[in-house]
Amino acid sequence: MLPPRSNFSEWYSAVLKEADLVDLRYGVKGFLVIKPWAFKVIKAIYALYEKELERDDHAPVHFPAVIPESYFAKEKEHIKGFEGEVFWITHAGHNKLEERLVLRPTSETAFYPMYALWIQGWRDLPLKLYQSGTVWRYETKATRPFLRVREILWIEAHDAFATHEEALAQVERDMAMAERVIRAKLGIPFLALRRPQWDKFAGAENTFAADTIMPDGRALQIATTHDLGQHFAKAFSITFKDSSGRESHVWQTCYGPGISRIYAALVALHGDEKGLIYPYAVSPIKVVVVPIPRKGKEGVVEAYAGKVAERLEALGIPFFVDTTDRTPGNKFFYWELKGVPFRIEVGPREAEEGTVVLASRLGGKETIPLEELSTLPERGRAFDAQLRERAEAFFTSHLFEASSWEELEEKVGRGMVKVPFCSIDMDGVECYHRIKEELKAEVRGEELRGEKPGGERCVVCGKEAKHFVWVAKQY
Amino acid sequence: MLPPRSNFSEWYSAVLKEADLVDLRYGVKGFLVIKPWAFKVIKAIYALYEKELERDDHAPVHFPAVIPESYFAKEKEHIKGFEGEVFWITHAGHNKLEERLVLRPTSETAFYPMYALWIQGWRDLPLKLYQSGTVWRYETKATRPFLRVREILWIEAHDAFATHEEALAQVERDMAMAERVIRAKLGIPFLALRRPQWDKFAGAENTFAADTIMPDGRALQIATTHDLGQHFAKAFSITFKDSSGRESHVWQTCYGPGISRIYAALVALHGDEKGLIYPYAVSPIKVVVVPIPRKGKEGVVEAYAGKVAERLEALGIPFFVDTTDRTPGNKFFYWELKGVPFRIEVGPREAEEGTVVLASRLGGKETIPLEELSTLPERGRAFDAQLRERAEAFFTSHLFEASSWEELEEKVGRGMVKVPFCSIDMDGVECYHRIKEELKAEVRGEELRGEKPGGERCVVCGKEAKHFVWVAKQY
Repeated sequence: MLPPRSNFSEWYSAVLKEADLVDLRYGVKGFLVIKPWAFKVIKAIYALYEKELERDDHAPVHFPAVIPESYFAKEKEHIKGFEGEVFWITHAGHNKLEERLVLRPTSETAFYPMYALWIQGWRDLPLKLYQSGTVWRYETKATRPFLRVREILWIEAHDAFATHEEALAQVERDMAMAERVIRAKLGIPFLALRRPQWDKFAGAENTFAADTIMPDGRALQIATTHDLGQHFAKAFSITFKDSSGRESHVWQTCYGPGISRIYAALVALHGDEKGLIYPYAVSPIKVVVVPIPRKGKEGVVEAYAGKVAERLEALGIPFFVDTTDRTPGNKFFYWELKGVPFRIEVGPREAEEGTVVLASRLGGKETIPLEELSTLPERGRAFDAQLRERAEAFFTSHLFEASSWEELEEKVGRGMVKVPFCSIDMDGVECYHRIKEELKAEVRGEELRGEKPGGERCVVCGKEAKHFVWVAKQY
Repeated sequence: MLPPRSNFSEWYSAVLKEADLVDLRYGVKGFLVIKPWAFKVIKAIYALYEKELERDDHAPVHFPAVIPESYFAKEKEHIKGFEGEVFWITHAGHNKLEERLVLRPTSETAFYPMYALWIQGWRDLPLKLYQSGTVWRYETKATRPFLRVREILWIEAHDAFATHEEALAQVERDMAMAERVIRAKLGIPFLALRRPQWDKFAGAENTFAADTIMPDGRALQIATTHDLGQHFAKAFSITFKDSSGRESHVWQTCYGPGISRIYAALVALHGDEKGLIYPYAVSPIKVVVVPIPRKGKEGVVEAYAGKVAERLEALGIPFFVDTTDRTPGNKFFYWELKGVPFRIEVGPREAEEGTVVLASRLGGKETIPLEELSTLPERGRAFDAQLRERAEAFFTSHLFEASSWEELEEKVGRGMVKVPFCSIDMDGVECYHRIKEELKAEVRGEELRGEKPGGERCVVCGKEAKHFVWVAKQY
């Protein structure tokens, strides 16, 4: 058994180790070795997201991992935001480089010099490209596997449009993709928020984020999309001629689903004291077959397990037959820890009757005829729906409201708290500072399509509230 | 039209540009921006290879892109071979790092410290893991897109075994995977060679490589696999206890299909003066539909093109209907340049008859009933077989034999030349130097299962030949 879920921090460390997801002994702080049982799921998450991006007319590209300092320094806010947290390449072979290179912390300054070359006229717009890969940030806070690392697995999409309206529509589409992948497929609920001005991406006009709530009540940002306005377009001279021949700067967005963090949320939200629970949609194997031999009937059971395997093979359902020399009980325990959605048990009785015992990782067992293994994909969808409902129930029960400072103070450690707040423009920054200093919490922003206050007062300063914002402690 | 294929260097540069495969204007030498029409095929090649590796019981992992200098320096031959061609990270944020980091040029020294921790007993063997990704080498020679770059797309598989025999059997399996992916699926022929001792991977016992021949007659290495012996096992203390409790070092192999170079070979070998020709197996779209309207019949043709599209959609065949305002002739020209295997033309006559004109990028056109679009995948396989045969015919016609220095000298610029050679152990290095200096060519090694000389004499020194070796100018 793992530590109780109520001690989330210990549970998380234990599950990473016991389920063999990462090795933390690599010799560079914040850099993980990600083992197959985690990385297979991460690959599946990438594939789901790439499919959605391509459906939304994004095409895949490969940009270099290194950015010359001269590109990196072009947008003033951007370099100010990032220069303290990048890795610098200064030498190659036995030579000192003429120009230093940055290991990309994000790729705006790699993509946009090319966008300036590629975009000439309105026919070149919209331009929508994405790259799946890795970025590196010299994180100075304490690192935590998948949650706060120096080598981050993510996807970034960089889009350019003729108008601000189209760019804002893309922000909505980005959030809709997050709904389809993160919530619908992976069962991870989140709030879609507009971040306060003091917490936006360096160089953006506005930042929008998907925040989920971890088992310890702290908010975790799992995807962001940024309305870049024309800031980078101006810094990199990305212009186009419209159909009347007039030259304008493009309007840009960039989108970053954080694959490392989505995986962290998947592990954290769905797991239990027995271990992981992987959604059927992304689990490397959907079902494990455990033969339960009885003395004198070993051959019968083995042959029948083979028959079950043949059937699963024919159905195209990824599976594993556990014929190791552990006891059945140990096998149950092991595959529960690994989070495989279904387990099939077959003994002499099942062999005789042509049935299997089908156990769900979410509880419950039933005996079904061998032919009904064809219902596994359907049962898998039901399994994922059940996981999603559990996670939604947890999420909803950790959303609070407060209408006073005292109430906020009382609730803020437990989840995300909705409060009336004076302003998420820079005028609200003083109130934010008080929340930050006294409650060690963050103003996560207002909901994308949330209601507006009708006369409520800011819980900090008492001035008229312009927004309802969500406040939480964060990762 | 592109430059003639006989001027391969110009043809290659032109097709990269005209078919919009890369942008060479990124501000760091040897680092490509790879555009969607190339990168989609590269992704497909990765997927094919990953599938083969997983069928061969390899599991995917993620290792960091940075290697601490202390790891990197552990195997003496290895660091000697690589230290002149790595990028060094020396600073992060505003700090100088305590230990310099290497941007991985290959990952032996990242994987093997972990292998020492993971491998304890014989039950932990074999260990077979792979990583798809990028490595970086500070290439000092002239760079060439995909052929010689500083950011290399590849896959690396690192395997550990209990015995040398098992390791050598893996070398054979690695070459068999290359056969299945590179030759069978992508239609790229190659020779499987054991490299001379003076040309092996830094730290290996023996290097084996797949070499293809480019249109200019020069050899291109597209995959390598290395018998590492116990060199790294000793440097990194990777040991296991066998079933009798005796401790031994593991035997290792590492395998590197070079995805950048495989893509280069695919472009170079299959293309013609009209442009690219993509194999059906990896082409981003399998067929382009070009409506050929006639005055007064625009609506009929448009509706029928829609019907064709519906049918292709239902069949799950990736396609594109070109409804841009270019002329049909320009559209033909454009999609031929892009290398799409099939083109469907539909005009009023086809609409009336319920047929389509189906043209192959390899030549030939026929009119088939709409229902027969279901034969496209089968036609695609035949298309790929035809491509492969063309490439094999080219390849075979560029394999020569020579039994004297003069004959070698005469043929070596035209392809790969098989000659009797004294020795590919270090005793042959003098003869190699003469080939290198006087012919500007390389000894590429002996065939993996090739015949042995029966009394022939080395074409260089005239001593008894131990091997037939292939000599060629190289990329």
